[in-house]
Amino acid sequence: MSFPKEKSLSEKYTSTRDYTTFLCTPLNEEDYVIQVVEFASPPKWHLAHTTWFFEEFVLLPFLENYEVFDSRFQFLFNSYYNNVGAMLARNFRGAINRPTVEEVYAYRKYVDNAMASLLQQTSSSEIEERIVLGLNHEQQHQELLLSDLKFAFSKNPCFPVYKSDFIPEHQKINAKGTKEILEGVYEVGFNGDGFCYDNEKERHKVYLRSFGIEKAPVSNAEYMEFMNAGGYDNSNFWLDEGWNWKCRQNSGAPLYWKKQDQEWFHFTLGGQVKIDEEAPVCHLNFYEAAAFAAWRGTRLPTEFEWEVASAHFEWGLRWEWTQSAYLPYPGFKKAEGAIGEYNGKFMLNQQVLRGASIATSAHHSRNTYRNFFHANSQWQFSGVRLIS
Amino acid sequence: MSFPKEKSLSEKYTSTRDYTTFLCTPLNEEDYVIQVVEFASPPKWHLAHTTWFFEEFVLLPFLENYEVFDSRFQFLFNSYYNNVGAMLARNFRGAINRPTVEEVYAYRKYVDNAMASLLQQTSSSEIEERIVLGLNHEQQHQELLLSDLKFAFSKNPCFPVYKSDFIPEHQKINAKGTKEILEGVYEVGFNGDGFCYDNEKERHKVYLRSFGIEKAPVSNAEYMEFMNAGGYDNSNFWLDEGWNWKCRQNSGAPLYWKKQDQEWFHFTLGGQVKIDEEAPVCHLNFYEAAAFAAWRGTRLPTEFEWEVASAHFEWGLRWEWTQSAYLPYPGFKKAEGAIGEYNGKFMLNQQVLRGASIATSAHHSRNTYRNFFHANSQWQFSGVRLIS
Amino acid sequence: MSFPKEKSLSEKYTSTRDYTTFLCTPLNEEDYVIQVVEFASPPKWHLAHTTWFFEEFVLLPFLENYEVFDSRFQFLFNSYYNNVGAMLARNFRGAINRPTVEEVYAYRKYVDNAMASLLQQTSSSEIEERIVLGLNHEQQHQELLLSDLKFAFSKNPCFPVYKSDFIPEHQKINAKGTKEILEGVYEVGFNGDGFCYDNEKERHKVYLRSFGIEKAPVSNAEYMEFMNAGGYDNSNFWLDEGWNWKCRQNSGAPLYWKKQDQEWFHFTLGGQVKIDEEAPVCHLNFYEAAAFAAWRGTRLPTEFEWEVASAHFEWGLRWEWTQSAYLPYPGFKKAEGAIGEYNGKFMLNQQVLRGASIATSAHHSRNTYRNFFHANSQWQFSGVRLIS
Amino acid sequence: MSFPKEKSLSEKYTSTRDYTTFLCTPLNEEDYVIQVVEFASPPKWHLAHTTWFFEEFVLLPFLENYEVFDSRFQFLFNSYYNNVGAMLARNFRGAINRPTVEEVYAYRKYVDNAMASLLQQTSSSEIEERIVLGLNHEQQHQELLLSDLKFAFSKNPCFPVYKSDFIPEHQKINAKGTKEILEGVYEVGFNGDGFCYDNEKERHKVYLRSFGIEKAPVSNAEYMEFMNAGGYDNSNFWLDEGWNWKCRQNSGAPLYWKKQDQEWFHFTLGGQVKIDEEAPVCHLNFYEAAAFAAWRGTRLPTEFEWEVASAHFEWGLRWEWTQSAYLPYPGFKKAEGAIGEYNGKFMLNQQVLRGASIATSAHHSRNTYRNFFHANSQWQFSGVRLIS
Repeated sequence: MSFPKEKSLSEKYTSTRDYTTFLCTPLNEEDYVIQVVEFASPPKWHLAHTTWFFEEFVLLPFLENYEVFDSRFQFLFNSYYNNVGAMLARNFRGAINRPTVEEVYAYRKYVDNAMASLLQQTSSSEIEERIVLGLNHEQQHQELLLSDLKFAFSKNPCFPVYKSDFIPEHQKINAKGTKEILEGVYEVGFNGDGFCYDNEKERHKVYLRSFGIEKAPVSNAEYMEFMNAGGYDNSNFWLDEGWNWKCRQNSGAPLYWKKQDQEWFHFTLGGQVKIDEEAPVCHLNFYEAAAFAAWRGTRLPTEFEWEVASAHFEWGLRWEWTQSAYLPYPGFKKAEGAIGEYNGKFMLNQQVLRGASIATSAHHSRNTYRNFFHANSQWQFSGVRLIS
Repeated sequence: MSFPKEKSLSEKYTSTRDYTTFLCTPLNEEDYVIQVVEFASPPKWHLAHTTWFFEEFVLLPFLENYEVFDSRFQFLFNSYYNNVGAMLARNFRGAINRPTVEEVYAYRKYVDNAMASLLQQTSSSEIEERIVLGLNHEQQHQELLLSDLKFAFSKNPCFPVYKSDFIPEHQKINAKGTKEILEGVYEVGFNGDGFCYDNEKERHKVYLRSFGIEKAPVSNAEYMEFMNAGGYDNSNFWLDEGWNWKCRQNSGAPLYWKKQDQEWFHFTLGGQVKIDEEAPVCHLNFYEAAAFAAWRGTRLPTEFEWEVASAHFEWGLRWEWTQSAYLPYPGFKKAEGAIGEYNGKFMLNQQVLRGASIATSAHHSRNTYRNFFHANSQWQFSGVRLIS
Repeated sequence: MSFPKEKSLSEKYTSTRDYTTFLCTPLNEEDYVIQVVEFASPPKWHLAHTTWFFEEFVLLPFLENYEVFDSRFQFLFNSYYNNVGAMLARNFRGAINRPTVEEVYAYRKYVDNAMASLLQQTSSSEIEERIVLGLNHEQQHQELLLSDLKFAFSKNPCFPVYKSDFIPEHQKINAKGTKEILEGVYEVGFNGDGFCYDNEKERHKVYLRSFGIEKAPVSNAEYMEFMNAGGYDNSNFWLDEGWNWKCRQNSGAPLYWKKQDQEWFHFTLGGQVKIDEEAPVCHLNFYEAAAFAAWRGTRLPTEFEWEVASAHFEWGLRWEWTQSAYLPYPGFKKAEGAIGEYNGKFMLNQQVLRGASIATSAHHSRNTYRNFFHANSQWQFSGVRLIS
Repeated sequence: MSFPKEKSLSEKYTSTRDYTTFLCTPLNEEDYVIQVVEFASPPKWHLAHTTWFFEEFVLLPFLENYEVFDSRFQFLFNSYYNNVGAMLARNFRGAINRPTVEEVYAYRKYVDNAMASLLQQTSSSEIEERIVLGLNHEQQHQELLLSDLKFAFSKNPCFPVYKSDFIPEHQKINAKGTKEILEGVYEVGFNGDGFCYDNEKERHKVYLRSFGIEKAPVSNAEYMEFMNAGGYDNSNFWLDEGWNWKCRQNSGAPLYWKKQDQEWFHFTLGGQVKIDEEAPVCHLNFYEAAAFAAWRGTRLPTEFEWEVASAHFEWGLRWEWTQSAYLPYPGFKKAEGAIGEYNGKFMLNQQVLRGASIATSAHHSRNTYRNFFHANSQWQFSGVRLIS
């Protein structure tokens, strides 16, 4: 976590936790509980799960005499940590009408109070690291809360508005041209002082060929050219798995797009609006990103090319799909026990995305950050940048 | 609808509508919106759908200049009436975070006001019949609201309590012995003055053999004997489809039952409580009811046997599965248009249940009433009575 | 079994068994083994299963010192008799490359020889009844062999020909007008001397209203009118379950029909041929039969109406869907043990078909015969006759 | 294809084609046609598809006046080449009872004759390259024919024997110790004169850290230790996707293993035999290979580590799962048109296997060969070698 240096851990804790609740201010109570698909969890669940993370991984091991707020929450709000016990099946997160939203906020307060005690008493680096992990974890869920919410809202044919212009989905980047990188051995992976996830390590050498990379991400206008050129109808641009996905879904545009009277609109957190052609295209999955690149006669960057070149272009409006599978770096070691389940066990059949998005929390991005999702995932704020 | 005769239609309208909202008094706002399975709709949806029924089938055709509250509701709250347009897929009823509960109550009020106007102005029998249908429809949904709620609450591992002793699930019947009915031609089907559904007509003759029927429904104690005798493990008692269901589900007890420390508990609207052995068994599906009867060396009554004998025993705590498939009576004609979709199109592959249950609304039962569900359905308040 | 009286049981045994192998004469060895869908078994399996039936239910209990041909066959060729042990999952019947066809014929011969011994030695009525059951069972599988084969062949885009004009699928009935039956109490169910299945008993009284029934089954020409009138596009003609089936399948014609250059063809056991408009329509499922009747403003007969009227019209080219669910008759008792599994356990969620078809074996039809299939089944030679 | 240099292309063609039919000599006609699962095709299909490949990609474009044997085969035996037209759905390959085996052999002969003509007439390098591709393609299918057959036979509870000792599944490698490779930049990918697939190119540099690799693949004895240590019951050794697979399948041993009386047996092409503890473990999927490595506290090699070290150990009894996802090499370009579909479109969500197996055809292996399968695939002759 690359917070301003001057901030104490306590201050960082408070501001991070507050931001999660701030994101919920536009919500009605009913918005907190809906789940329309297994992969998109209700806001209430995010609020509680991030709290459970501190309870389970900080307070229980490190705060003497800590008593859990409610033992049933250990089952309800465990996401996927087999080492700390059983968990509610993911597709039943929408069944959690109780505890109520109010009770979940009480839970947050209870844990925050206990965390305050702990932060006052203690200063071991082990505890601090665990807390920092918890804060980064919470920041990840802040973005997920937004993307999950957007997906759930989109399934309501009334297209509810979360909040106008809260998340500037139309923000643009003005950039042109290509950055050329020369062949050679480069170092990649995290090597700073601050926080990083275990999957960003070890820093290691890779051999890269010369390549050029576009300074701007692909825009809506460019993507529409692909659509207009029949890109969704020509199997030659698609990976086999992508083509099957396309045929099954009968897809012809990015997620959330809808054509009305010859014009393209898309659903945003601020409601249904006209596509802004200059904004970077969003909500592509890997199949679409790769098909677009093939149509353009080029390819996506690998995550290493992206990292090496990243100082030379602006990023952060859209997660950028790379050609790299999400795999362990040389020397990667997962931690013992439950914490080791955080990242390592997902290193198969997912693709790496690099960068950040307009929904990513402040202080939660760096050019070694490895985000990862399945190739069919569209609901993240994901776009594409091309090798030129 | 067999309301006390002295009540005006207006009074009946008000009391029926009020009872629906009364049923929702114990709910938190979040309870209104959850859907955990396709067949069990959220309370909010029931509140709105019953209102839509009056809007679509009474106000739009009969109240001059009526304007719908919100045209989107015609899509959201249409259940299955193809004749009046498209509808939200059933498994997305839980996505309706908006309109909010408050807005749905405003919708109810708006429609109630319009209905009040209509009821003052008009007195055609056509309109009155349609209103009475709407009230009976709402009463059906009152029971569904309770059974759907019970199912949703049961999927929350916290087992939330709806309300203690609101619905007396443990009520008993003290009855013994058998009623004998002699062979002969009997008349069945509705022939009174009041309301009945189209599926209860035409009244017609059936030839019945002599039979005896038990005056009491099967109790929990009797059902436990079946369980203890290995009833769930012997395919010979089961219909083929039932045995497949049992194997797939690995069932060994009725829905909502749980064994703790050698004692059986079950989940009720009043929370998790010990099984009362003398109460009638509940939440059986047809497979279980039929297997139980086979184990006892007997069978379920047909719906005609049940109807003919029904004056001679007490009923109303549990819907009672019959051996009869839900089929049209001789001379059955479905109405023109959407109203004709109410019952007729479901006359295939469902079983008839007779009687009523502790969750059935007052004035919503008669001995010609034909309830119907799929053979695998357990979530209604359904039990069994045997031919002796 | 209503064989000519003069035939001995031995002769009946031989002629029935021979007819099964005769049906296989047009087959290549590869045809014997293919299974393209769970419900349609390979010819080899039918050959072996009917043999297993005699081994399991006649030879093992009644022929002293009988030794099974191959103990593995007891698992491979048991269809659904839980009382005699485990069985191969139905969808793996196509995995039986071994035993080979040759070995299965050797199995048939081995069992036939043992049966010959038994038939010479014994004359108990218990044994004779069991043998007659086995022969009727084999006759049922003769028809299934043909309908399963037709289905499998139809999935091969080369449309292989089983045999031209072996089964006269285009045979017609010349009949006109209506037979009127008067209201009254009638007796239905089997009461002759010969063989019947347990499901045809007990003979019992039913009360029927007056009705008229068409003397001719519905023709292809009549069904095409329904198709041309948009019958497949109007939900009002369809049962809800039927409409869902239609939408999911995107059906617009009976099974095996294909339009080529504005003309309708269909796949038959003799190859792809033009529809004969005067022949009775075939390969409808119950949904289609019922929708057709609704479009014509009428309905299907009940199985009792059909039986009572059956002396007055010609039947036997197509199984005729009735409006009756397949349920036990009054007084129905299933036999003890495995034989009791033959019919009784299937008495739920299937529809009765009456009559016979051009694929039904000789001496295997009577007007009390109750055939039954699921409402979505199209692959039998099934048509429809209307109440007029 | 690294055939002995002295052989002419004609000789290579004949010997490769003959070997395919030789592999079928132990088969009955019925064995040729069975398909028990979508991914395992019948032998007849392999025989015809490899022939179709020459017809479609060599004879049609290059042999003047060539006429296809049967135009329907272009649909039946196209596997996945969208550029040359529609194809039979993969799960209906078992429906191909016709053409018969005999006709398929006639098809092979017809194409072989035409190929002989072509080979006499022509000597363009373009044609030669295409023929060599066809021969390599056929060799791949020779191995698939064996692994598909083994899978199909295994689903027959009679466990048919293909041929004893035809494929020496128990062959062993006697090797010990570790090969150490030093850190540095290495070249990987094909750069010889002979044939390679497009996915082996371009040869490129990679930076490798120092590592050691075991000279012997993991044996059955070693894998049994993992099983006995509860390896299948501890989620910490498994990738998340692998753990879900394990739980769903309830797996506890490699494919084809069965415990009888405290001893492990496995199904082979030569029948059911006792496990040979010293032979390399076989029929692991990637999940199992990776879990085993985690239990041993190590990992699988990457495909580059494997290639660089491969000169220093013996390989060829089992395909060896690597930690590398199947992705394009730098500079990879797929060919225009249908031939470009051969490999490139599958470069997502599959894992690379290196080496060869006892079922791999002679002259069809090299240390740059990239085999690839989904992580859950067990039916190939796949094992594992560890980083030490």
